[in-house]
Amino acid sequence: MPNISERGCEMPQSPIRKLVPLADAAKARGVKVYHLNIGQPDLPTPQVGLDALKHVNRNVLEYSPSDGYLSYRQKLVKYYEGYNIHLTADDIIITSGGSEAVLFAFLSCLNPGDEIIVPEPAYANYMAFAISTGAVIRTVASSIEEGFALPPIEKFEALINERTKGIMICNPNNPTGYLYTRAEMNQIRDLVKKYDLYLFSDEVYREFIYTGSPYISACHLEGIEENVVLIDSVSKRYSECGIRIGALITKNKELRKTVMKFCQARLSPPLIGQIIAEASLDVNEAYLRETYDEYVERRKCLIDGLNKIPGVYSPIPMGAFYTLARLPVEDADEFCAWCLTDFEYEGQTVMMAPASGFYTSPNLGRDEVRLAYVLKQNDLKKALFVLKKALEAYPKRLNK
Amino acid sequence: MPNISERGCEMPQSPIRKLVPLADAAKARGVKVYHLNIGQPDLPTPQVGLDALKHVNRNVLEYSPSDGYLSYRQKLVKYYEGYNIHLTADDIIITSGGSEAVLFAFLSCLNPGDEIIVPEPAYANYMAFAISTGAVIRTVASSIEEGFALPPIEKFEALINERTKGIMICNPNNPTGYLYTRAEMNQIRDLVKKYDLYLFSDEVYREFIYTGSPYISACHLEGIEENVVLIDSVSKRYSECGIRIGALITKNKELRKTVMKFCQARLSPPLIGQIIAEASLDVNEAYLRETYDEYVERRKCLIDGLNKIPGVYSPIPMGAFYTLARLPVEDADEFCAWCLTDFEYEGQTVMMAPASGFYTSPNLGRDEVRLAYVLKQNDLKKALFVLKKALEAYPKRLNK
Repeated sequence: MPNISERGCEMPQSPIRKLVPLADAAKARGVKVYHLNIGQPDLPTPQVGLDALKHVNRNVLEYSPSDGYLSYRQKLVKYYEGYNIHLTADDIIITSGGSEAVLFAFLSCLNPGDEIIVPEPAYANYMAFAISTGAVIRTVASSIEEGFALPPIEKFEALINERTKGIMICNPNNPTGYLYTRAEMNQIRDLVKKYDLYLFSDEVYREFIYTGSPYISACHLEGIEENVVLIDSVSKRYSECGIRIGALITKNKELRKTVMKFCQARLSPPLIGQIIAEASLDVNEAYLRETYDEYVERRKCLIDGLNKIPGVYSPIPMGAFYTLARLPVEDADEFCAWCLTDFEYEGQTVMMAPASGFYTSPNLGRDEVRLAYVLKQNDLKKALFVLKKALEAYPKRLNK
Repeated sequence: MPNISERGCEMPQSPIRKLVPLADAAKARGVKVYHLNIGQPDLPTPQVGLDALKHVNRNVLEYSPSDGYLSYRQKLVKYYEGYNIHLTADDIIITSGGSEAVLFAFLSCLNPGDEIIVPEPAYANYMAFAISTGAVIRTVASSIEEGFALPPIEKFEALINERTKGIMICNPNNPTGYLYTRAEMNQIRDLVKKYDLYLFSDEVYREFIYTGSPYISACHLEGIEENVVLIDSVSKRYSECGIRIGALITKNKELRKTVMKFCQARLSPPLIGQIIAEASLDVNEAYLRETYDEYVERRKCLIDGLNKIPGVYSPIPMGAFYTLARLPVEDADEFCAWCLTDFEYEGQTVMMAPASGFYTSPNLGRDEVRLAYVLKQNDLKKALFVLKKALEAYPKRLNK
């Protein structure tokens, strides 16, 4: 039997994957599992999107252009104008989800061995795409004490060497919910400019910002227009994770030409998904406002509830629909597994994502979990109560 | 401005891409262009697939499993049984088109610098995925004189060294239409076994075989079950290129585990596409027969027509819907461009794919073009007549 590739062996397995069979077993025992672990919104897809799906009127489901339909890209231009991001349709390349946008960005910008600097905790799949492409992720740790703010920019600069090609951020952040401030974004801009780096900016959660602070896109930063690669996706904003429609956006023409070669090799992004995503841009204000209001309430419910549990601490996330909370346990991986294997309260338990999957440094975030607030408030409240009971019952609970 | 990656620079640009603006300009002049260059079938998608699309009844277009829906994979098991390929649902991983299956196969099996051997001419995007993953494609030339039969297996063996990890075939073949014989497949099997290589077998055209000879899948070969990676796609067989649904199939459990890590990183294959593809498996016999009969007629029409043009020669393709024909010109790239820029016959011209894009050896196939028979017979006949006129008018025509 021939060997598996080295990168295949290196590919990380998210700690949550190990929990899936444990959750399945719990469910098989009749236990109700509250899923605080997932990033799949439960809110409905906009009706205009669903209607477009029902009215697809084609006899041949043929290839779409490798960069996506022009009509969709033109409509996206208007969408981004609403965020004060000024683009032309040419600047936008449609991808199979934000995932493919990250992959093509790395393939196009980075040589094997090239380094990018990422504040951690970070979305675990950045590491997977780095390994896929031979790129190296160097991390700078943010901390729960600082509310996961951008670490001092000097720590980024200290990591820069001749292999450093870029900085990657997620803003608002998955998994922390942190929203980078104007001052922080300007620090990033200055560093990017000083060393002529790429700035990969994943901004798929821009609809979910719960503070008066402004959303500062990487595309708002002046003087680094050719360095910015925006990663986007409709998955979260329209609850359309399944249609696999994302985008890679850059003003850098040379880079777009290169990205297009990878796009042409895979022929085209999904046809039906583009039709749905294009229609969803006409979603009415009421849908967006209701979705937003719902998340505001859930966030309040979750964060208040968490901080009321003795020994638990969560900063207040300013965006996205996650928070990273500290639990009074030594090893959150173990606690999360225990909740599924050895605990139930009145036939209920909780599933959470151990934060270890979001850190590359093995000793960081050992006592943290990521919780998503994509459950209805009533379920969130029940889940919080069950979590409180679990911590009370956990034999290895620390006295904090 | 930071540098583009080396692999980005190396990514080949198909010669056909250079012709696209020329074809657009011809159309802008009012010239009717017969597209003999494309691989997009014009035949309708099965009605059962289109009906499934109209009846998607979901409020949330959520993620599907990373390996695809179990119900679809179970139904595929029955489909493959019809070809005497015995699988379980676990053996099948659903991908975003056959393209992603090739990418994940290379990522999972090959280290950068590892070599695979591919008979050429070959589907150009194999090279693109090799460059994306750092793998090296070594080619063994087949020739139009031999009807693009498998080159002597000794030529493959001569290329094997310590970096050789696999052989890749496309069967029935794009671009040649060749169908590998049982004897040829056995030769490949023996070599794969002798050196414990991977055998990547792209068999997306199995529905389109126009000879009494049997279809020998790589999955039929005994003794190399753990070495075979089957690449599949519904794009061609159901005229569903746009839905981006393919599959990576292997009995090798260790390999599947690795492929799944790449699948999990990109979260999921397209949801709606899977629903359409699953429904399309219920397509009635009449659709398949009519499609088949139509291609049989078109093939006859195209090949007869080509061989009647003085100086043109095409072998008889046994499968797929392409042929690679030799023209009485020195440089087919130049001739194909000339047809679009300097020629028209009663307001019509033809667009063909220069074969140079399918060869890695720069001196091979210079006088060959790939022609797809995805046009209605009437249009095919007109296109052939226009091609004849073009060759008569071409100043650099060779006297063959």
